[in-house]
Amino acid sequence: MDLITLATTADIRDRRPEIALLPVGSFEQHGRHLPLATDTIVASAIADGLAAVYNVFVLPPITMSCSHEHAAWPGTISLSHRTVSAVIEDVVVSLTAQGIGKLAIISGHGGNYFLSNVVQSANAVTPKSMTLFPSRDDWRKAREDAELETDDHEDMHAGELEVSILQAVAPGALRDGFESADHRSNARPHLLIEGMAAYTSSGVIGRPSAGTAEKGKAILGSLVTSFGEHLRQLTES
Amino acid sequence: MDLITLATTADIRDRRPEIALLPVGSFEQHGRHLPLATDTIVASAIADGLAAVYNVFVLPPITMSCSHEHAAWPGTISLSHRTVSAVIEDVVVSLTAQGIGKLAIISGHGGNYFLSNVVQSANAVTPKSMTLFPSRDDWRKAREDAELETDDHEDMHAGELEVSILQAVAPGALRDGFESADHRSNARPHLLIEGMAAYTSSGVIGRPSAGTAEKGKAILGSLVTSFGEHLRQLTES
Amino acid sequence: MDLITLATTADIRDRRPEIALLPVGSFEQHGRHLPLATDTIVASAIADGLAAVYNVFVLPPITMSCSHEHAAWPGTISLSHRTVSAVIEDVVVSLTAQGIGKLAIISGHGGNYFLSNVVQSANAVTPKSMTLFPSRDDWRKAREDAELETDDHEDMHAGELEVSILQAVAPGALRDGFESADHRSNARPHLLIEGMAAYTSSGVIGRPSAGTAEKGKAILGSLVTSFGEHLRQLTES
Amino acid sequence: MDLITLATTADIRDRRPEIALLPVGSFEQHGRHLPLATDTIVASAIADGLAAVYNVFVLPPITMSCSHEHAAWPGTISLSHRTVSAVIEDVVVSLTAQGIGKLAIISGHGGNYFLSNVVQSANAVTPKSMTLFPSRDDWRKAREDAELETDDHEDMHAGELEVSILQAVAPGALRDGFESADHRSNARPHLLIEGMAAYTSSGVIGRPSAGTAEKGKAILGSLVTSFGEHLRQLTES
Amino acid sequence: MDLITLATTADIRDRRPEIALLPVGSFEQHGRHLPLATDTIVASAIADGLAAVYNVFVLPPITMSCSHEHAAWPGTISLSHRTVSAVIEDVVVSLTAQGIGKLAIISGHGGNYFLSNVVQSANAVTPKSMTLFPSRDDWRKAREDAELETDDHEDMHAGELEVSILQAVAPGALRDGFESADHRSNARPHLLIEGMAAYTSSGVIGRPSAGTAEKGKAILGSLVTSFGEHLRQLTES
Amino acid sequence: MDLITLATTADIRDRRPEIALLPVGSFEQHGRHLPLATDTIVASAIADGLAAVYNVFVLPPITMSCSHEHAAWPGTISLSHRTVSAVIEDVVVSLTAQGIGKLAIISGHGGNYFLSNVVQSANAVTPKSMTLFPSRDDWRKAREDAELETDDHEDMHAGELEVSILQAVAPGALRDGFESADHRSNARPHLLIEGMAAYTSSGVIGRPSAGTAEKGKAILGSLVTSFGEHLRQLTES
Repeated sequence: MDLITLATTADIRDRRPEIALLPVGSFEQHGRHLPLATDTIVASAIADGLAAVYNVFVLPPITMSCSHEHAAWPGTISLSHRTVSAVIEDVVVSLTAQGIGKLAIISGHGGNYFLSNVVQSANAVTPKSMTLFPSRDDWRKAREDAELETDDHEDMHAGELEVSILQAVAPGALRDGFESADHRSNARPHLLIEGMAAYTSSGVIGRPSAGTAEKGKAILGSLVTSFGEHLRQLTES
Repeated sequence: MDLITLATTADIRDRRPEIALLPVGSFEQHGRHLPLATDTIVASAIADGLAAVYNVFVLPPITMSCSHEHAAWPGTISLSHRTVSAVIEDVVVSLTAQGIGKLAIISGHGGNYFLSNVVQSANAVTPKSMTLFPSRDDWRKAREDAELETDDHEDMHAGELEVSILQAVAPGALRDGFESADHRSNARPHLLIEGMAAYTSSGVIGRPSAGTAEKGKAILGSLVTSFGEHLRQLTES
Repeated sequence: MDLITLATTADIRDRRPEIALLPVGSFEQHGRHLPLATDTIVASAIADGLAAVYNVFVLPPITMSCSHEHAAWPGTISLSHRTVSAVIEDVVVSLTAQGIGKLAIISGHGGNYFLSNVVQSANAVTPKSMTLFPSRDDWRKAREDAELETDDHEDMHAGELEVSILQAVAPGALRDGFESADHRSNARPHLLIEGMAAYTSSGVIGRPSAGTAEKGKAILGSLVTSFGEHLRQLTES
Repeated sequence: MDLITLATTADIRDRRPEIALLPVGSFEQHGRHLPLATDTIVASAIADGLAAVYNVFVLPPITMSCSHEHAAWPGTISLSHRTVSAVIEDVVVSLTAQGIGKLAIISGHGGNYFLSNVVQSANAVTPKSMTLFPSRDDWRKAREDAELETDDHEDMHAGELEVSILQAVAPGALRDGFESADHRSNARPHLLIEGMAAYTSSGVIGRPSAGTAEKGKAILGSLVTSFGEHLRQLTES
Repeated sequence: MDLITLATTADIRDRRPEIALLPVGSFEQHGRHLPLATDTIVASAIADGLAAVYNVFVLPPITMSCSHEHAAWPGTISLSHRTVSAVIEDVVVSLTAQGIGKLAIISGHGGNYFLSNVVQSANAVTPKSMTLFPSRDDWRKAREDAELETDDHEDMHAGELEVSILQAVAPGALRDGFESADHRSNARPHLLIEGMAAYTSSGVIGRPSAGTAEKGKAILGSLVTSFGEHLRQLTES
Repeated sequence: MDLITLATTADIRDRRPEIALLPVGSFEQHGRHLPLATDTIVASAIADGLAAVYNVFVLPPITMSCSHEHAAWPGTISLSHRTVSAVIEDVVVSLTAQGIGKLAIISGHGGNYFLSNVVQSANAVTPKSMTLFPSRDDWRKAREDAELETDDHEDMHAGELEVSILQAVAPGALRDGFESADHRSNARPHLLIEGMAAYTSSGVIGRPSAGTAEKGKAILGSLVTSFGEHLRQLTES
């Protein structure tokens, strides 16, 4: 899988896609076994899967976003939500100018809460122009379809889900030892105040040991199916 | 209850509060029986309740915020999340200059997703300086403590919870007829794309008929208790 | 009087107002007897009065603005004029989207000088789309009509005019003792440099002792009349 | 007089000024006899006069600002007040970095209302760091000292005062015919809504015919004296 | 030469220019013999020359811009490139509103690299609406046409070219001694990191001694010719 | 080569790098044989090469930037230079907070002119904190060292240099046919006005046929050497 699309201008011209996909990742600690870029890999993997089935224009990923809750670990980089919003607004201007009026933000980082506001405000101005994918429901269904052992609360960060996707698309990005890095911290009442460091010393919250490539493939497959409904919503008149 | 605090400068000088509360409401449709300002009333009611127990500096509410999903109904006003963030940043500057280093955003509108990013980024720069209250857990506990019949998914907008709080603190703000305005719409998979209008014609999603003043008081009482832990988090060294 | 409108979406839909009123208050010291929110009460009182006579859409107030000259007193909160301008711009976008092309900013705080620039620049882009009310002339006429003993220079802050309006619409917001809080400071040559603190220790400049509810009612009545001309200016073709 | 200072870096190094002067002009119609740049000439003339007496660092002028009320006439250029504020903020950063902590904005255009907010907010953060000159009082005194026939309300734009200053410092900038361009329009109740065009077809409101070089010199001399008090306010401890 | 145009609104109305010229100067050290405002003088001289031949609307200059590489010398003032961009955007809005759809930025300061991005992005939105003049090629040709002894690398700052233009249009702005201020510093590999101070103590890099009024006139004449092609590019359909 | 670093937080913690590298690419047409992401690949390849030799913290790339001159071709996405600057400012804040005070912007796209202003202004505030790499000199030397047949003017876009680097690090990104895509267009006087489309129909300007993997490796090796001097400049006291 290419983390950044290798499409040429000729590809886009020939394909005439109606909708663009913008992977939004992050650059934040994912424990000592998963890369800082994990969320970008996840978002790119999803976009890649969609592009194999739907006629979409895959944009290169936004590689840094709002990771302030991980600031306690070296290497984490955060952008202001206002800055990331500005990037998305500029992307929309370029897309619109070339006749592509639909955008799906492919989110690999759950901590970018503001993206829901970005999407809602875009749709208030230009109806049915933007979606945020996967939704919370899409993720839940993917976990079910792939028979994950954990839910999205327990397996919050660098756990079963992310390891599974990495195993499926970028196994080389995973360092040995993740199998013994499980960490449980279901009560995280003051995450916004204290950040992740109050609930995990390793940076992991979840069950990386349960991750497998098969689950990863099944997750991605489930998401490919779920996206169909987003597409229908955006493109039906 | 005063929707806007009537404190004087002398009150603040005498009280020497360590923490300020900033109610963040909205101005968005709440069906034909609840005011556009419902979320501001809710946020103010919570702040009012807290001020009766804790030594806090209640700020006047932000009265408009991100309500783009309600744009289909007359009267709804939305600000960009970037604008609301700028307001909050300016408030922090003023508070800091007068020696008040802690801020609790009292949120009456669940649709301001970006507030989580505002809080996390503030705490990344100045640890333990800001919280968002009530958290999702605080709301859940309040519903339980007050024995509401609905949960927060089913009773999403202009329903049991909001009617209860209005009944408790501003019954005059409630128009006759809310008792027969219940509307169920549990599946709202494309809310971000379509807005509320795809799931309700009245603007209500929830069970306003179940609202009572007693429940409202119990909700507010529960939240007063829950806030204690936020305060402890912000002020312990 | 409600400091924040309790209108519902149905009210706005039924009324089909052509023009919106945006009260702009402040949160700044008004001495030890008047609330920090005095200017918001004043702006809301004016809007309320206008709404009783004209078919207008009363927006909720902006509750904090540019109060830097009062920063020496606890509780004062200031926003940058750039932030308040952004709020107003967003409000205009929402109004325009619902077919309301006229906005009257109802100003309760004379220190928001920049509002004149906001209005002029809006009208340069969209002619006759915005006004600032009351104008200096409107205030002068209101003082005359209500037979105030003071003029706007002498009675600058927390004095006869503001006490009169509070007496008329929110007497409970006024603390005992205002009658003996008169303070004269007619020469204030370096207010911009030094702020209010150089000219008053109590925070008052003016004659609160002269305030009465009758005067307050007369002031509001005079302003209702004056607004007619603004409306004519904005709506005539 | 040079409209833009010809000082060299060596001059500033040798002089070691404590305070900088930033002329803020505009580029807006001044009738058919006065240049669009009149306000910039006025601000520069004042700065020039001050520099002859006080040890100040004269900055080059801001040559365009908020002239939206003159948009009806060809050639008028307006900046947003937010943009002009950004320019001033950047200037303050550069001055501070070289150890110059005081700034006097020398205003040649009365329509830049927001400058009062810029100054007050700067002083709230860094006390006694900025002033706005001339104040309304300074202008009134200058008119009196120079025995002008008009006051600042009657002689609002392209009139006796501006012609006098041009006669004094840049007589070549004045076109023949100004002597017969007097225009009286004392009632301008809706200037903010309608702009200047509702009150004058020539662009003049005032009495240019009364302008003389002697008056111009006297005005500038009076302002030089008045500035002393601003300087004292900014520099006394 | 007037550093700021003395045109009146009537001039612009009568001339009906299709294109505006915006001189962008700077306020940065130019050694002890040339004014801080040198780049503004240069830009204004070029605009003046063009206005004598073409039907253009000369705007007043932007007098400060990006001079961070000169921050080591007293008197240098820098604006952020984002601020200068905002000024230009506002100017375009005003021009467009009065039917002038073309803008040539007349650049007197080579260090404003971002202007190329400003121009390209403007043309991406509105084709053929903006140019940056002189281009590097235009400057090279001007040096050749005027038979300068130096090229643009060697004669980078306060040297032969700038002295020549000052001699031609503002000889009084030049202080005695420039003839012996030549300074050679052809290798400046880390100018972006270290600024000018690493390569010159006087602030000069180039050969001021070679400057003459004749060369200055020839440079300006050459540029007048070169501008014709820009005009053709912008205005041909 | 990984286009996005796969480092973990533990890597950064252990390495304790003093300086971060931020690859800045673009997403713009590079003809029908090279990917839209070519500049991001180039920037990443350089960063990768540097990381093999120096103790640096490689950040993930900025994948879109200022490509307005390529807007005529499908797929090109442009951000405003103000947005990209905001991203870089946020990155600096995160780096500074974790004690990394030096940043090298690794530029893969020559059209981001404003980056020079970003770097100079950063260094004006915090001396020796930022560099832009490769400089024009560094590129020239790399071409010489690698014995390219073309210079940087002739081989401007999608030519010998870019093909060589792709051949060296990502040969699979190159489509068949590039060998016959050479296009010569040395005179491009109005590139800023007209964009690339006026000078090439294919999108290529340069000699892709001359590209080889060996040259690519030699270019990258030369740049590794050149970076040493940047590092010395930033880190010497």
